[in-house]
Amino acid sequence: MSNSIGKMFVVTTFGESHGPAIGAVVDGCPSGIRLETAIIQRQLDRRRPGQSRLVTSRREADRVEILSGLENDRTLGTPIGLLIRNENTKGGDYAAFAGVPRPSHADFTYMMKYGVVASSGGGRASGRETAARVAAGAVAETFLADRCGVRIVAWVSAVGEIEARDMTASGLTRSEVDSNEVRCPDKNAARDMADTILRAKTDGDSVGGIVTCVCSGVPAGWGEPVFDKLGASLGAAMLSIPAVKGFEIGSGFSAARMRGSEHNDMFVMKKGKVLGTATNRSGGVQGGISNGEPVVFRVAFKPTATIVMAQETADYRGKMKKLEGKGRHDPCIVPRAVPVVEAMAAITLADAALMARATSR
Amino acid sequence: MSNSIGKMFVVTTFGESHGPAIGAVVDGCPSGIRLETAIIQRQLDRRRPGQSRLVTSRREADRVEILSGLENDRTLGTPIGLLIRNENTKGGDYAAFAGVPRPSHADFTYMMKYGVVASSGGGRASGRETAARVAAGAVAETFLADRCGVRIVAWVSAVGEIEARDMTASGLTRSEVDSNEVRCPDKNAARDMADTILRAKTDGDSVGGIVTCVCSGVPAGWGEPVFDKLGASLGAAMLSIPAVKGFEIGSGFSAARMRGSEHNDMFVMKKGKVLGTATNRSGGVQGGISNGEPVVFRVAFKPTATIVMAQETADYRGKMKKLEGKGRHDPCIVPRAVPVVEAMAAITLADAALMARATSR
Amino acid sequence: MSNSIGKMFVVTTFGESHGPAIGAVVDGCPSGIRLETAIIQRQLDRRRPGQSRLVTSRREADRVEILSGLENDRTLGTPIGLLIRNENTKGGDYAAFAGVPRPSHADFTYMMKYGVVASSGGGRASGRETAARVAAGAVAETFLADRCGVRIVAWVSAVGEIEARDMTASGLTRSEVDSNEVRCPDKNAARDMADTILRAKTDGDSVGGIVTCVCSGVPAGWGEPVFDKLGASLGAAMLSIPAVKGFEIGSGFSAARMRGSEHNDMFVMKKGKVLGTATNRSGGVQGGISNGEPVVFRVAFKPTATIVMAQETADYRGKMKKLEGKGRHDPCIVPRAVPVVEAMAAITLADAALMARATSR
Amino acid sequence: MSNSIGKMFVVTTFGESHGPAIGAVVDGCPSGIRLETAIIQRQLDRRRPGQSRLVTSRREADRVEILSGLENDRTLGTPIGLLIRNENTKGGDYAAFAGVPRPSHADFTYMMKYGVVASSGGGRASGRETAARVAAGAVAETFLADRCGVRIVAWVSAVGEIEARDMTASGLTRSEVDSNEVRCPDKNAARDMADTILRAKTDGDSVGGIVTCVCSGVPAGWGEPVFDKLGASLGAAMLSIPAVKGFEIGSGFSAARMRGSEHNDMFVMKKGKVLGTATNRSGGVQGGISNGEPVVFRVAFKPTATIVMAQETADYRGKMKKLEGKGRHDPCIVPRAVPVVEAMAAITLADAALMARATSR
Repeated sequence: MSNSIGKMFVVTTFGESHGPAIGAVVDGCPSGIRLETAIIQRQLDRRRPGQSRLVTSRREADRVEILSGLENDRTLGTPIGLLIRNENTKGGDYAAFAGVPRPSHADFTYMMKYGVVASSGGGRASGRETAARVAAGAVAETFLADRCGVRIVAWVSAVGEIEARDMTASGLTRSEVDSNEVRCPDKNAARDMADTILRAKTDGDSVGGIVTCVCSGVPAGWGEPVFDKLGASLGAAMLSIPAVKGFEIGSGFSAARMRGSEHNDMFVMKKGKVLGTATNRSGGVQGGISNGEPVVFRVAFKPTATIVMAQETADYRGKMKKLEGKGRHDPCIVPRAVPVVEAMAAITLADAALMARATSR
Repeated sequence: MSNSIGKMFVVTTFGESHGPAIGAVVDGCPSGIRLETAIIQRQLDRRRPGQSRLVTSRREADRVEILSGLENDRTLGTPIGLLIRNENTKGGDYAAFAGVPRPSHADFTYMMKYGVVASSGGGRASGRETAARVAAGAVAETFLADRCGVRIVAWVSAVGEIEARDMTASGLTRSEVDSNEVRCPDKNAARDMADTILRAKTDGDSVGGIVTCVCSGVPAGWGEPVFDKLGASLGAAMLSIPAVKGFEIGSGFSAARMRGSEHNDMFVMKKGKVLGTATNRSGGVQGGISNGEPVVFRVAFKPTATIVMAQETADYRGKMKKLEGKGRHDPCIVPRAVPVVEAMAAITLADAALMARATSR
Repeated sequence: MSNSIGKMFVVTTFGESHGPAIGAVVDGCPSGIRLETAIIQRQLDRRRPGQSRLVTSRREADRVEILSGLENDRTLGTPIGLLIRNENTKGGDYAAFAGVPRPSHADFTYMMKYGVVASSGGGRASGRETAARVAAGAVAETFLADRCGVRIVAWVSAVGEIEARDMTASGLTRSEVDSNEVRCPDKNAARDMADTILRAKTDGDSVGGIVTCVCSGVPAGWGEPVFDKLGASLGAAMLSIPAVKGFEIGSGFSAARMRGSEHNDMFVMKKGKVLGTATNRSGGVQGGISNGEPVVFRVAFKPTATIVMAQETADYRGKMKKLEGKGRHDPCIVPRAVPVVEAMAAITLADAALMARATSR
Repeated sequence: MSNSIGKMFVVTTFGESHGPAIGAVVDGCPSGIRLETAIIQRQLDRRRPGQSRLVTSRREADRVEILSGLENDRTLGTPIGLLIRNENTKGGDYAAFAGVPRPSHADFTYMMKYGVVASSGGGRASGRETAARVAAGAVAETFLADRCGVRIVAWVSAVGEIEARDMTASGLTRSEVDSNEVRCPDKNAARDMADTILRAKTDGDSVGGIVTCVCSGVPAGWGEPVFDKLGASLGAAMLSIPAVKGFEIGSGFSAARMRGSEHNDMFVMKKGKVLGTATNRSGGVQGGISNGEPVVFRVAFKPTATIVMAQETADYRGKMKKLEGKGRHDPCIVPRAVPVVEAMAAITLADAALMARATSR
């Protein structure tokens, strides 16, 4: 269970990395929206392995097929079935792991829960599952752009010790983000990040990072008070992405060190007609509800668990083994995680948009 | 909408701070569990205003009445209705705010969403709503202790710039946490924290902080892969608490700076019979599912938005006003937030426990 | 679990018949709707025991208190807490049943599921639980009337062998329905029904019946295709009422005997401007979605299970016992079920109304 | 929305009759269950068009492909993706309907809700959508048989005026049901039913019917009190099947005519060790919870809306038109509806089984 997210805009994903296919069903997308395969494919291509020397050299075309929900490139209001066939399903790379749960991976916990682990590759716990999220997210994004004027842009803001300067107020575009292979629009930081990743790769190791995301154009009134606060829904969506260990909105953890007088966002009239805030430490959300300012949040990714370096760890019977990765793994996942963060933001906001239609005055 | 949380162990809360009552309905608690009003009252008393000089001087007894679901102090398996009458409902303290949305509070967003704001005091956005969560959480906790052997302890680990030393592995008890009015078991840090809070109070200001929580005894296999990962559910629960801006599990944001070889938790045989991990950077969750290690997470709270100091902010028509708080507000919310974090952890884990019954092999 | 119904307009009920109170939380009611205690009380009074010689002589005032969600008699958009204190909680009437599960009641199944039965009176399985539904339904109805122009009227259309003539197209009002104690607007049939009920009462027996309901003013477009068809949601709501054994919409079971050429509803232009149907065998729903015609359905109630006549039935250990009812029970439940059917219809339609806001083009 | 059913065993379907494919995702099936494509195909073949002279002559192979969730023919506990490619997607048969909403079909209501109708053939409102339900139902059934010992058998018990004798206590098998093309195990009635259907077919008309279903082996304790009563869930599932107008459980509508003394099911010790009931007017459910007796219910289907006979009905602008069906339609849907009813019963019971694991003592 739990392969669905959302209450009104509901995304269900399925598929193991080494089975016949992965895919998603997007239920709740309103009718009459122009949607083409190419729009979805574009985001899938940003997530795809093999894009650069910074990511896994595995090759998988990730071609999406739209199975339902469209007629003449317009949505019907019915569920949109999305299918991505697996191509690179050989299990050989993982044979070494038989009997030894990979450290900080999901082998052990799946075995404890299900009494079985999908052969090699992690099954649903594989990062490959996120391709289905990206495909579904592209549908959500199309709805948000078409009907609500929302624009979502994420980028890499930290890799290891390297942090980019704050660009949350810069109105960045995706092409600026994609201008380098790290997907960090701060060019100086990007260069150091690339070095950091390549050094980890050379060492047979991996390194973590942070993705920052800005959603602009979100109108005031989205998000539900109490348990479905917009920040809570976004947090849940981000924390459901494999390898994510932390989430913060607006000022985030830095708020803990601040005083109210420096943290509070004063209201001001903007462009002479809309009440907004002079600063945005709230990250666009107050009392769980969007206030019309950009929604800004940051997502912390741990270093990829599967590494080439030898690790001393116990097998299922408790015997210590030396485990060496042989697969083609990502030395740092954040460059490929950028479209995944955007997808989960889009899915969450699309749901909030539909909920707001229903629950507002 | 959104006043319910959970799929199988479902908590619904209701009530405005200045209406007749607040309360909760706890649906899904298994039958046959010993439950008394006193157990619930104990946690409510830890959240209650007026406990010390560090928190608001408002007085509210917060006496809970159990309306249903019990017979002879045993749960029936039916919904448990919990009622807390409001006593201190005079709205005078808030009269000054009429027409001016309080900065970084929920007045503006509620007005945008609902076209109305509950008179004075924020209605559902009031911190008072969390009393209902604490009452419901005490029920969840009783189930978890009685049937699953889970123990939850939270404490204040940071206030402003003051950070306590890491005590996540110390097996802390609630009485150790409650040994000082800050609820920080690191006594030296606690002293400095109290100073920090009192200085903010003297200045008519407020200050933020961090609450750390450890849930021990959680068996392997709780949490659902993909969208309902245990960390995602805990994150959503915590981010739904008023004033929370960030959540991290295990290594959290520090993971972004680490390499895989230093971050991975090696498996080892524990006590000669259970596979566990030598370190716990995973925070007790791998692939979204608990691994048998303690579940450890941290929650960042912003400084209380309502302060006594004057603030220059716009009224609803955009005219700048000087706003001065007159109410009795908390200069720092984290000492009282400790039982709220524990309650939301308990509610989330109780739901995960019931889900695991249903979804495991 | 399962004490909540609805996806966007969510009603949660709680309370045992012999505990301190019963009640409901109505979550999702839009803001700004005029609501008073008297509106709710009016429907509760129609469900209340002791109204006439045809129903149980038990006396219970069923006074409702609104705990939250209102200010100045207007909804705030926040959850509306409703409380009804139990007054008549003596368990004596039921003492005879100890150890013997009452035939066709819920004692046995609750014991099998929960390992316990709420002392005397059936706990949640008691018809008393429906008072909370009626209170919540009155809120739903107020929203539907105020915002959507929907009007719901139910009546008794059969008792035992006595059937009223078809009055679904008569535009009946509640006062016409309430013009006699059976709540059957066909006066001749009502007289025979009253006789039937009184004969059963005299015999220490009970008798079943049918409630018909018409919801007019439902606009086209409510209900979701596939699994949440409007007829399916209404059916689930009605079949969740204690003692209900059957549900049919429009032509219902009689459709099975018909040919397509006699069953199909031809489209015609109505009042020169709205497409409607010449007949209404569809019962106002086509393909699961309302078509603008009145929504018409019928609900079959079994005879009250608890009777005064002696019954030979096994106790929990399998020993045959002679069971004689001593309580004050309803010889026929349908006169009091009328407001319950209306309430469940209102709750279902309010949810469909909010869903339609979210899911329509 | 609404293309998912179930809380723990969740089935999501997608696909238009004239698009590339239809399919389902089954989420929540426990791990370790033996499942093969052939098991699913067997039920699909029973629903397939073109099986006999009594049903539509359309031909569609309906080959299912399992996309995920299995390894070595065992379930993994992860979602099971099911795909059925459409083959017969020519829209020509429906061209005549352009501009004229078909009477008692879903064209008009979809247009009102979505502002668009899937070209020809009804899109999601097509009976073809039920193939995905049948595929998903076969998975549910496999789980129920393997883990719970539940056996589900449905058959045609009425066509037009012809009613089969009551065979609910006969322990029927599917091969007995399939022994004739009507799927009515009462051979005499079956002959008359076939005649009735062929006469309707000859007249270019259609006829309705009833499907009866018995689920044996359901243990006591499934179903949730109050809103998710087992009868309510089954009713919602059945009423979500296209063309269904009524549902009754156990005694159903006949209960309305009975007295309590004749309706009540007395408890008796069965086989010397299990408490059961001497009669089964409850239909296996008491207080919403299964009591260990067979679950018995009946489902009324209206005559197929699309007929060859000319119909006088208005087009979207209100102008009367003569509509003549040209497609190959089912003169009576119930023979093909039998596996659909079984599938929806299986999906509902599988969900109840998982819920019972979570909610029981």
